Amino acid sequence: METTVKNIFRNKETFENKEITLYGWVRNNRAQKEFGFINFHDGTFFESIQVVYEEQKLDNFSDVQKFRVGSSLEVKGVLVLTPQAKQPFEIIATSIMLLGDSPEDYPIQPKRHTREFLREVAHLRVRTNLFHAVFRLRSVAAFAVHEFFQNQGFIYTHTPIITGNDGEGAGQMFNVTTLDLNHLPKNDDGEIDYKKDFFAKRTNLTVTGQLEAEAYALAFKNVYTFGPTFRAENSNTQRHASEFWMIEPEMAFADLEKDMDNAEKMVKYVIQYVFDKLPEEMEFFNKFVEKGLKEKLLNVLNQPFAKVSHHKAIEILKNANEKFENQPEFGKDISTEHEKYLTEKHFKSPVFVTDWPKDIKAFYMRLNDDQETVAAMDLLVPGSGELIGGSQREERLDVLERRMEEMHVPKEDLNWYLDLRKFGGCKHAGYGMGFERLVMYLSGVENIRDVIPFPRTPKHCEF
Amino acid sequence: METTVKNIFRNKETFENKEITLYGWVRNNRAQKEFGFINFHDGTFFESIQVVYEEQKLDNFSDVQKFRVGSSLEVKGVLVLTPQAKQPFEIIATSIMLLGDSPEDYPIQPKRHTREFLREVAHLRVRTNLFHAVFRLRSVAAFAVHEFFQNQGFIYTHTPIITGNDGEGAGQMFNVTTLDLNHLPKNDDGEIDYKKDFFAKRTNLTVTGQLEAEAYALAFKNVYTFGPTFRAENSNTQRHASEFWMIEPEMAFADLEKDMDNAEKMVKYVIQYVFDKLPEEMEFFNKFVEKGLKEKLLNVLNQPFAKVSHHKAIEILKNANEKFENQPEFGKDISTEHEKYLTEKHFKSPVFVTDWPKDIKAFYMRLNDDQETVAAMDLLVPGSGELIGGSQREERLDVLERRMEEMHVPKEDLNWYLDLRKFGGCKHAGYGMGFERLVMYLSGVENIRDVIPFPRTPKHCEF
Repeated sequence: METTVKNIFRNKETFENKEITLYGWVRNNRAQKEFGFINFHDGTFFESIQVVYEEQKLDNFSDVQKFRVGSSLEVKGVLVLTPQAKQPFEIIATSIMLLGDSPEDYPIQPKRHTREFLREVAHLRVRTNLFHAVFRLRSVAAFAVHEFFQNQGFIYTHTPIITGNDGEGAGQMFNVTTLDLNHLPKNDDGEIDYKKDFFAKRTNLTVTGQLEAEAYALAFKNVYTFGPTFRAENSNTQRHASEFWMIEPEMAFADLEKDMDNAEKMVKYVIQYVFDKLPEEMEFFNKFVEKGLKEKLLNVLNQPFAKVSHHKAIEILKNANEKFENQPEFGKDISTEHEKYLTEKHFKSPVFVTDWPKDIKAFYMRLNDDQETVAAMDLLVPGSGELIGGSQREERLDVLERRMEEMHVPKEDLNWYLDLRKFGGCKHAGYGMGFERLVMYLSGVENIRDVIPFPRTPKHCEF
Repeated sequence: METTVKNIFRNKETFENKEITLYGWVRNNRAQKEFGFINFHDGTFFESIQVVYEEQKLDNFSDVQKFRVGSSLEVKGVLVLTPQAKQPFEIIATSIMLLGDSPEDYPIQPKRHTREFLREVAHLRVRTNLFHAVFRLRSVAAFAVHEFFQNQGFIYTHTPIITGNDGEGAGQMFNVTTLDLNHLPKNDDGEIDYKKDFFAKRTNLTVTGQLEAEAYALAFKNVYTFGPTFRAENSNTQRHASEFWMIEPEMAFADLEKDMDNAEKMVKYVIQYVFDKLPEEMEFFNKFVEKGLKEKLLNVLNQPFAKVSHHKAIEILKNANEKFENQPEFGKDISTEHEKYLTEKHFKSPVFVTDWPKDIKAFYMRLNDDQETVAAMDLLVPGSGELIGGSQREERLDVLERRMEEMHVPKEDLNWYLDLRKFGGCKHAGYGMGFERLVMYLSGVENIRDVIPFPRTPKHCEF
């Protein structure tokens, strides 16, 4: 019977003393004189299964002894429970066939590799324990996000990737063009004639789907996006990539309180989900990637997130008995060290920082009655800093227009966005979560390049 | 108690004679002398709910009479079952408050609009019945796809959007650049110096995630992608968009048979899922968009898909008592009219056409023993033509390299792809499904521009 390593681990009794067939790869092969052991991995499960082969049972014993790490095999054998051994069971092979060889220059040998080296072989690194765990987590967490929103009737909305919007102010953008750069068409003024470009105008890769999501929220009440977004910033940090996936829920008739409530429930849902579905992987991260990860995350599940206004947060920082490199200041952004102090020392929990100074936030955030702050929130989490940023949106047409003028956001491109305030507008709110940030938070992996299958960063676009 | 129209429709007994609060929009307002009716839609459900308002119950009766189509409201009232009336229940309002006005120039009036006009107001068209149904279907079908694959342990893989791969041959590509087109850097030979570009080389928007998905399949066994892909072709048809979403499963140790088996199960799963979750929307499509849609789709559920080789299909077409504009020919592609004949007249079911002439298919498809055809399949469906294209992949390094040379695919960019054959390679297969094609097939909507929230086509990149 053909089965998978996952099936065996999850239902071992079913397979006891049964003849089974598996397809997978050699993780290690320790040949002895008359027998040997293969750590066999079929990709369906975090753990390998031990295959025992014996000279007396296999015609091709001397070949099997030489099967190299990375080779693909068909293994037939009988599953035997081994309650006294380290591993819970093993397969006594009756037949092992080589399907695909793996020469000696196979880069993924069973030894420690640096993460820098493994990035260079991103097409193969996923065959290691660490990256196998990371990318299974990524998949399962993505599904958890979908399930959370779908269960509540949120509509998954595919907002555009290529956009003509220029004025969102969320960051530098990549240009998208089919013009022949060697023969650029010019207009009568000697400027590049974008009318000849594919879309008959300048276009870019999106930095956010929020504005389009707002249009859909005002029809469906609750919507979310989950798609790639882009930043053309030349920043080489552990937490920034040029291409990353974002989740952006948007809720009509919701204020900042509802917004925070939804974000808190979502984060908790995903944490619970990955512990339920991936106990082996979470154990591995806890042991080998971030000691204390499990405690950190389970702690989050069991308490309400803290909330503090930006003003109050600055007060806390000013009164802290702590030497900061950057002095906390009213009206200014807070830095990584401040985030660390608030989440890890002061609140010892995730914390929403609310009501930010308007000048350091985006034009679409709702102006508070004090005329100085906006109804925005950042969710800071212990160990990872900012995980989510959101706000109530400015629904008052006159205030929004004034804010756009103050912040030099061109209105002519965004007439459709203003329409949302003109025709049946209402209170609404939303947030954005960088999906890679979530995966880093859940796994303890510190470099964003290690949670994206084929990362794109300045000067790096391999594979 | 605050609730939603969906909750009421799904659990009306719970709300009978209860005081409830709803937030939503006016779809229609028919004011009489001493009372009136509002068709009230809150975005959570396909149907509207009827709100009855009476002069004697409301202080602001004369205002409510004037509330216009599109306005947003808070409605409080009592739910009354009306078993003898057309609608199953109504709300007798105790309070109706205007939240957001909707001036008379609101484009979405309760009358027939052309789809062409509605595309121009894509930010508002989703407030109509048709587009509300389409985009809820899109969301629910997307989740069904995820659930189908996740239930079987497939790993959701985010393959890159920006790519340096040039040689996939799947179509024309958009360039991605941060170079200042007005001041292009040149190298010593007078050519554009892409080393100065963001990624230090030429980059494009991806046309497929398949090649990267193969790398992940050879580590996880079963993976799938679900993300945007791009074509810079200047084709203005009802079935082509420049930006669309694709689903690309990839399975290690699978041959073409397993590939087709998975594709058939997936399509059936999604059809069943949308009938289960969206009975009202499917009824609407059946009645107003494509007569016979339900029969067409339910018919698909109840029979195995047909299978026919390309050679045999051409024979069938040649023997057909039918005048084709394009003559069917061995070794050549089949056209839309041929697809129509095969699915609608000959097989009267979805049909996999397999084993295509190698010269009209991609380099990575596995060469059959006849040396003339490849182990490829197209799934054709009645009413929509090609829904899925897939193949077993060429796993033999020498054959793959020969095919790349024959088809002028540059090897130096794809060394990593060749590695997948070098190190533990194995039989594997996969397919791609354009998600918009699926939504069109499920809804009967004929123009791809009407199943994408903000479509991108040549010269069109609005919103």
